[in-house]
Amino acid sequence: MENESCNTDQFDLNTLAYHRAGRHNNPSGTIIDVSGVKIGGREVVIMAGPCAVESQEQLLTTANAVQDLGGNILRGGAFKPRSSPYSFQGLEEEGLKLLKKARQQTGLPVITEVMDTRVVEMVCDYADVLQIGSRNMQNFPLLKEVGQCRKPVMLKRGMNATLDEYLLAAEYILAGGNPNVILCERGIRSFETAYRNTMDLNAVPMLKKLSHLPVIVDPSHGTGHAWMVPDLAKAAVAVGADGLLVEVHNNPDNALCDGPQSLSIQQFELMMEDLKILSKALGRGLYVSENAI
Amino acid sequence: MENESCNTDQFDLNTLAYHRAGRHNNPSGTIIDVSGVKIGGREVVIMAGPCAVESQEQLLTTANAVQDLGGNILRGGAFKPRSSPYSFQGLEEEGLKLLKKARQQTGLPVITEVMDTRVVEMVCDYADVLQIGSRNMQNFPLLKEVGQCRKPVMLKRGMNATLDEYLLAAEYILAGGNPNVILCERGIRSFETAYRNTMDLNAVPMLKKLSHLPVIVDPSHGTGHAWMVPDLAKAAVAVGADGLLVEVHNNPDNALCDGPQSLSIQQFELMMEDLKILSKALGRGLYVSENAI
Amino acid sequence: MENESCNTDQFDLNTLAYHRAGRHNNPSGTIIDVSGVKIGGREVVIMAGPCAVESQEQLLTTANAVQDLGGNILRGGAFKPRSSPYSFQGLEEEGLKLLKKARQQTGLPVITEVMDTRVVEMVCDYADVLQIGSRNMQNFPLLKEVGQCRKPVMLKRGMNATLDEYLLAAEYILAGGNPNVILCERGIRSFETAYRNTMDLNAVPMLKKLSHLPVIVDPSHGTGHAWMVPDLAKAAVAVGADGLLVEVHNNPDNALCDGPQSLSIQQFELMMEDLKILSKALGRGLYVSENAI
Amino acid sequence: MENESCNTDQFDLNTLAYHRAGRHNNPSGTIIDVSGVKIGGREVVIMAGPCAVESQEQLLTTANAVQDLGGNILRGGAFKPRSSPYSFQGLEEEGLKLLKKARQQTGLPVITEVMDTRVVEMVCDYADVLQIGSRNMQNFPLLKEVGQCRKPVMLKRGMNATLDEYLLAAEYILAGGNPNVILCERGIRSFETAYRNTMDLNAVPMLKKLSHLPVIVDPSHGTGHAWMVPDLAKAAVAVGADGLLVEVHNNPDNALCDGPQSLSIQQFELMMEDLKILSKALGRGLYVSENAI
Repeated sequence: MENESCNTDQFDLNTLAYHRAGRHNNPSGTIIDVSGVKIGGREVVIMAGPCAVESQEQLLTTANAVQDLGGNILRGGAFKPRSSPYSFQGLEEEGLKLLKKARQQTGLPVITEVMDTRVVEMVCDYADVLQIGSRNMQNFPLLKEVGQCRKPVMLKRGMNATLDEYLLAAEYILAGGNPNVILCERGIRSFETAYRNTMDLNAVPMLKKLSHLPVIVDPSHGTGHAWMVPDLAKAAVAVGADGLLVEVHNNPDNALCDGPQSLSIQQFELMMEDLKILSKALGRGLYVSENAI
Repeated sequence: MENESCNTDQFDLNTLAYHRAGRHNNPSGTIIDVSGVKIGGREVVIMAGPCAVESQEQLLTTANAVQDLGGNILRGGAFKPRSSPYSFQGLEEEGLKLLKKARQQTGLPVITEVMDTRVVEMVCDYADVLQIGSRNMQNFPLLKEVGQCRKPVMLKRGMNATLDEYLLAAEYILAGGNPNVILCERGIRSFETAYRNTMDLNAVPMLKKLSHLPVIVDPSHGTGHAWMVPDLAKAAVAVGADGLLVEVHNNPDNALCDGPQSLSIQQFELMMEDLKILSKALGRGLYVSENAI
Repeated sequence: MENESCNTDQFDLNTLAYHRAGRHNNPSGTIIDVSGVKIGGREVVIMAGPCAVESQEQLLTTANAVQDLGGNILRGGAFKPRSSPYSFQGLEEEGLKLLKKARQQTGLPVITEVMDTRVVEMVCDYADVLQIGSRNMQNFPLLKEVGQCRKPVMLKRGMNATLDEYLLAAEYILAGGNPNVILCERGIRSFETAYRNTMDLNAVPMLKKLSHLPVIVDPSHGTGHAWMVPDLAKAAVAVGADGLLVEVHNNPDNALCDGPQSLSIQQFELMMEDLKILSKALGRGLYVSENAI
Repeated sequence: MENESCNTDQFDLNTLAYHRAGRHNNPSGTIIDVSGVKIGGREVVIMAGPCAVESQEQLLTTANAVQDLGGNILRGGAFKPRSSPYSFQGLEEEGLKLLKKARQQTGLPVITEVMDTRVVEMVCDYADVLQIGSRNMQNFPLLKEVGQCRKPVMLKRGMNATLDEYLLAAEYILAGGNPNVILCERGIRSFETAYRNTMDLNAVPMLKKLSHLPVIVDPSHGTGHAWMVPDLAKAAVAVGADGLLVEVHNNPDNALCDGPQSLSIQQFELMMEDLKILSKALGRGLYVSENAI
């Protein structure tokens, strides 16, 4: 036996530790309402958009396509965590304003990342969901701060975090008073370098067993290659994810950030068609936003 | 060098290194005939059976169920690689004889593991497919030996092998003169201890891009928990695997080996029903053996 | 891209990316002055003290022992990053005041962790060195904030960060205008569970080759077991570390945090004797603070 | 706490599992006699030589230098495990004959790798110590075969093996009837690609606590860079290793295998001088072979 210490019993003990995040707290599973979009129910929710907000034209073109093709929530980064200080760091508040404009035009709720406790309040004014990135999964002051917000929070799993650490991080937000936490598996670091990260789809059924919180999968970061995203998106739906977070760009070749893993609008369209058929066959279907025509 | 840095470009270069295993050698993909069962075509092949052959009653009961419920190939270990010298090591040739009897009764071809160069010939006499286990992925004398067999070989990926190392290991078998190599992703070791291994489903599309060889997924070892197997099996089919290798036991609670990850016959039946619907929706279907009623 | 493939050649290229942190910037190596203690010179600097500041009695007793036994800098956490929101989170400003008192009594400069951009200024008022913990290695707003301080910063390597990511994180601080960055290897996560982390002593010569910044080793977090700390401390000095960061507690059995990895004062004394002999044999010696008697 | 499940208690339980390898079996530690060289005593034993035996001139030149400079055992591979089937696979029996000649000339006992059960007997005829490589740590038929030899066996730790798995693998050899097992830490695979492997020096004190068997360290494979080898060799001695296994080549630039990590004879000489001073300061000293002049 490889991981001989592996057992769910240990986790059962730990549900004492995450007494808010633990499944026992809501055995039927929590549904989170993001400005009208229900995450955690039977249907699969699609969050899509560019990695970074770059310009009005880029964002609105992409947002319109996402909405036309059945996406439910618009993603786009205004504050970008970049390994190098010399890389593009995002448009910051200017980016948030563009997201607001895109929401007005498309009716799509907006998710965007927040990295700094000092701008949480500002981001709350613009966003429908706050995203905490992988690198900040254990940024405890930030977790405490978003715990005091009224907006839902999507907490991405750290690159090498165990599920135990992950649920304890979610517990910080819940303990702060914010009950609307969405989990997101986005790939772990492995020894394989042919892809950017390695999707851990085992995490989906295990997180849903251990916790009542909805679980989203991000196959864009989980693979790093646009051509792999639709395959892993299908796998994520088949394994039971409550939704997907996907990078789409109106012009991936010229993206300022993560171009190689961004779907073009046409690739997104094809993927959505496949997901419609697949999710139906699984008795689920894709979520249809009320504002959709 | 072990940690050879590699990205997809380098993989393109490396197709020089695996000039037999590389996709360029058969761009439409290789179909391998295992005593009448075609692996690598449109349809999904199911290999199922107990971890270890334990007794005639255990094996035949399980084999009959596998055949009744649409399985195509019977798995069962006669030589077992066990971490401890004091654990059950398998029935050895007695186990091979039972596999032969099960094949006669059910018509199912048989796959079983071989670990020692000295028994390759003997195992060839009984088995339809030779399995090389994860721990032996880089057992080069063994790879050379099975390279000289006429029987197909299923080579499992090492627990932490890169795809580059994996395809080079396959190359050993191909270079030895045996063209019938089947790949098998069975989970990698990660930091997560809630499951035995972590399925790397990214590997499926990437292996199929880099190589023309069929790719099987083993969700039993990939999770270590019977309750997770059906979810990951669905994900594996959705991501494009050519087939599944699944542990099924007529009495998992009393299995001598890997009971916690073995499906009961009833669980296997339910999984097969789900996979039928799912694979159909994906335009594939499950493979129907010619000997099936 | 996270998994950027890198070999030493690429590191040479990347010195373009970390043009401030790169060795070429100061080939003879940078010596950082921490309130009179020189880090990065020939001699080995010892930073020691409790994981967390717990009380005046605990801190002063430990601080006096550290100073008596030849320690150069006092460590102690006032803000503690804890996996669970229900664990002791540190005494916060009260802890900083106790550190100040300990410095007044012993003459030892003080190092303490800062996690939140909003308290950087406050921590600067009390501390001689700001510590950025592993979990915050890529907390970019925090790196930018301490980049604007006049106090030296010790940046711990992330639990699974590559050296490339690590030096880019240091580059954030340097690019912000703060030239006084100290690196610290504190163990990586591996599959081994017999120790809390796995010391990566390869990192020491490699970091010193790639960068001109001083490199400290933390064998307390790097092992998680007090009995292992002296052995790894000796190894760290032998491999070329500029100093050590060690947890010492006047009563490890009752520590509120990390007791099992804290040396007792007696264990610290024995270790210091061994290090004196070893560092002398290596032609280095332990650093002797000017305020020492 | 990161690896929260980490505890030595679990290991204490497992000493039931490795009741031959466990420390309780010989609390004062086992000393193994390799044709007159004692491994596991106070003094540090040096095994050195080329990665692969390439020619008589290469081997004899290197062997003479190793002996002149104080090495105790000559290493050299006749059967080489190579990732690619198209790489140099070793001189095989011809290489063994050259090793025998080198032993006759220098008086140095010889260690060489065996990979195939079918040649164990032949290798026993030539070698003083059989080496089992990392990739074969869990090649159970091979472990059983060398368990029946009268020659000592050096078992290298698998690239990502836990210490628990490692000691169980040693237990296979001991249970087979061969009491002379030497352990060897040679680096684990980590996410860092700036070095070939990552030395896990934590393993040395932990293995010595858990087991009575001697522990050797291989800094050549553990780093992959000749320039790093002396630093890590010093660290290994400081942490308590019973000896070192080091690659030395009379002409590293033209080595058929692992040239970049092979010390030149001059580099080896410098390292030996440093190790003499260091080991003396630690109260140990280098082992002096009786046949040495």
